[in-house]
Amino acid sequence: MIDFFINPPKLYSKHIFSYIYHSNSPSSTHTKPIQSSLSSNTTMASSVTPTPLLKDELDIVIPTIRNLDFLEMWRPFFQPYHLIIVQDGDPSKVIKVPEGFDYELYNRNDINRILGPKASCISFKDSACRCFGYMVSKKKYIFTIDDDCFVAKDPSGNDINALEQHIKNLLSPSTPFFFNTLYDPYREGADFVRGYPFSLREGVQTAVSHGLWLNIPDYDAPTQLVKPRERNTRFVDAVLTIPKGTLFPMCGMNLAFDRELIGPAMYFGLMGDGQPIGRYDDMWAGWCMKVICDHLGFGVKTGLPYIWHSKASNPFVNLRKEYKGIYWQEELIPFFQGATLPKECTTVQSCYKELSKQVKAKLGKVDDYFNKLADAMLTWIEAWDELNPSTQLPNGK
Amino acid sequence: MIDFFINPPKLYSKHIFSYIYHSNSPSSTHTKPIQSSLSSNTTMASSVTPTPLLKDELDIVIPTIRNLDFLEMWRPFFQPYHLIIVQDGDPSKVIKVPEGFDYELYNRNDINRILGPKASCISFKDSACRCFGYMVSKKKYIFTIDDDCFVAKDPSGNDINALEQHIKNLLSPSTPFFFNTLYDPYREGADFVRGYPFSLREGVQTAVSHGLWLNIPDYDAPTQLVKPRERNTRFVDAVLTIPKGTLFPMCGMNLAFDRELIGPAMYFGLMGDGQPIGRYDDMWAGWCMKVICDHLGFGVKTGLPYIWHSKASNPFVNLRKEYKGIYWQEELIPFFQGATLPKECTTVQSCYKELSKQVKAKLGKVDDYFNKLADAMLTWIEAWDELNPSTQLPNGK
Repeated sequence: MIDFFINPPKLYSKHIFSYIYHSNSPSSTHTKPIQSSLSSNTTMASSVTPTPLLKDELDIVIPTIRNLDFLEMWRPFFQPYHLIIVQDGDPSKVIKVPEGFDYELYNRNDINRILGPKASCISFKDSACRCFGYMVSKKKYIFTIDDDCFVAKDPSGNDINALEQHIKNLLSPSTPFFFNTLYDPYREGADFVRGYPFSLREGVQTAVSHGLWLNIPDYDAPTQLVKPRERNTRFVDAVLTIPKGTLFPMCGMNLAFDRELIGPAMYFGLMGDGQPIGRYDDMWAGWCMKVICDHLGFGVKTGLPYIWHSKASNPFVNLRKEYKGIYWQEELIPFFQGATLPKECTTVQSCYKELSKQVKAKLGKVDDYFNKLADAMLTWIEAWDELNPSTQLPNGK
Repeated sequence: MIDFFINPPKLYSKHIFSYIYHSNSPSSTHTKPIQSSLSSNTTMASSVTPTPLLKDELDIVIPTIRNLDFLEMWRPFFQPYHLIIVQDGDPSKVIKVPEGFDYELYNRNDINRILGPKASCISFKDSACRCFGYMVSKKKYIFTIDDDCFVAKDPSGNDINALEQHIKNLLSPSTPFFFNTLYDPYREGADFVRGYPFSLREGVQTAVSHGLWLNIPDYDAPTQLVKPRERNTRFVDAVLTIPKGTLFPMCGMNLAFDRELIGPAMYFGLMGDGQPIGRYDDMWAGWCMKVICDHLGFGVKTGLPYIWHSKASNPFVNLRKEYKGIYWQEELIPFFQGATLPKECTTVQSCYKELSKQVKAKLGKVDDYFNKLADAMLTWIEAWDELNPSTQLPNGK
């Protein structure tokens, strides 16, 4: 018999999180907490909460090549937070940021100055450059969003505070070892169903929250070409843990993560200028990250929150960027599905370096690009450790 | 490189299923079929379709101890189909079935007469007896529902034709090898997202469709006791494939499956009268079934359709039935998570017999009950094969 009653909750317990998820439930057995900043609603009207969640513990990372007018619509939700803007393309261009936002901005010259020769691991002319922002952040959490993403509405017509939902996802546990048919068991009005092992109900720490998109779906170039008019109008009111051992296509458009837990695995690879491939930056990060989360016992969630994705990128341009990836991913998926990490790898960094080795050994023969990528993975970790000397201990502690 | 373009679709192709899922999509590239019985809507108003889907290929199995007045509400959807009623408890009691339904009814005397000594594998005084109905059916598909389940409404207020949605789930492929973040890629308005390997987009045959419940959630006794007033009001508009290698708690209340593909694995075990446990019948079937589906490459879906579950069972009675299961499942889950079947097992029957062996070897020491259960699993397969002599070939073909 597994002696699960003996082990006390380590970091997160159902009881702690019931404060977030169950506080307004009429049938809750827990005391309602005095915690004004936590709303138990999944979505909320467009008003600023008195004290925004994790205000001093989260950075918003935005890669861009244009003026950030899109922030106007996000003002009620983003203004309390610090922004890290990673300017892609011509560094002499001036990017305008709406007044009242607290931000720092890095262009290519800044990246080269800060990283020196290691700047080679940061992509140019590709939104993969956003991962530079993850590296220079000093916060525990990151939310990253594209500049063509706007505030979506829930089925009741209320503006969705995507950031607040991501934070809820990250602060409540994940359940990667067994699937709960009523989805996230920590949400208000839900729980673990009959047959769910009690020893697994404590869950594990959540490392990543992957949000979705209404309007323009995140399709590859062939699907965009075949279905030019398809729009995502289905609001699926669910958050769920991607089970252990299962890979998924992680999109970087609307994504949050615990930087202390998993940051060094969030490298978006070599894409764009001078590289044979684009639009696989977030996919690469997602596959590496998932293998490492599965190894270290962290959770990855997908589902809510939705943002409104306004502009489909050009499918012809995308096809040019993607076509090698379309072939290569047929090799990449079996590679990542089969990847195992030795138990000596107890930090994200050591896992990532080991994965780089396996990339070189097994994918180098697919294309020389993967040898370069494997080297860049190591450079990324070196640069990360230089800028974040305190995050090399087990589990980022 | 995986040579996936060379392999033609085997059984189901995206194109075939686009007839069901994409026929009314404005952006569909497929020709609209002349197929009056297929509606592309997920839910539909309470009217009978001209020719109900799979009318002569599906049986509805209902275990009961009472008059079947609940069928009145289902009349528009169920009346065209054949019912198999398995009467539990006192066989001298007369069960009234509303007029106009086509049905056969089996009580305990019938089960004993038909199976002889092998009737010992069919539970008594427990809804696990329903699996007798699976065995005597001669149809390709089974839908099973409890008699306290009623027609639910979708968020627009339309009656949900649960059976129609189950059929759509079963007739469209599953995607167990990689998670699609927009859920079922075969539904209208959805597709595979960027980064989904093209070689996996054909999917695999779907063996099981697990539907959910609005109102009374399927909670275990401890959760019922702690949250007596909790109701499920969240309509999650999604169908998804449970990934390969992931177990879930399968509830028998609202369930459909392809009997030819997976029927012999749908044994609901020894529960109720004379047994030390109850309320784990569907769980047991679900765990056995999932291990076998993963081995044989079949898919399992969960999500839509919802039914309206009206009556919570008594939590005190449930606690008595469940309490051993609550301990035992802590051993059962690691057992099923670790179970592997040899590749020589190419039929459901051979997989199931092998699993029975492993149950005896590994769970027999947990409690002698599992030795009895392992024997009953073999008896079940013998009885199944006697009644279904043609289903012993690979993949039920």
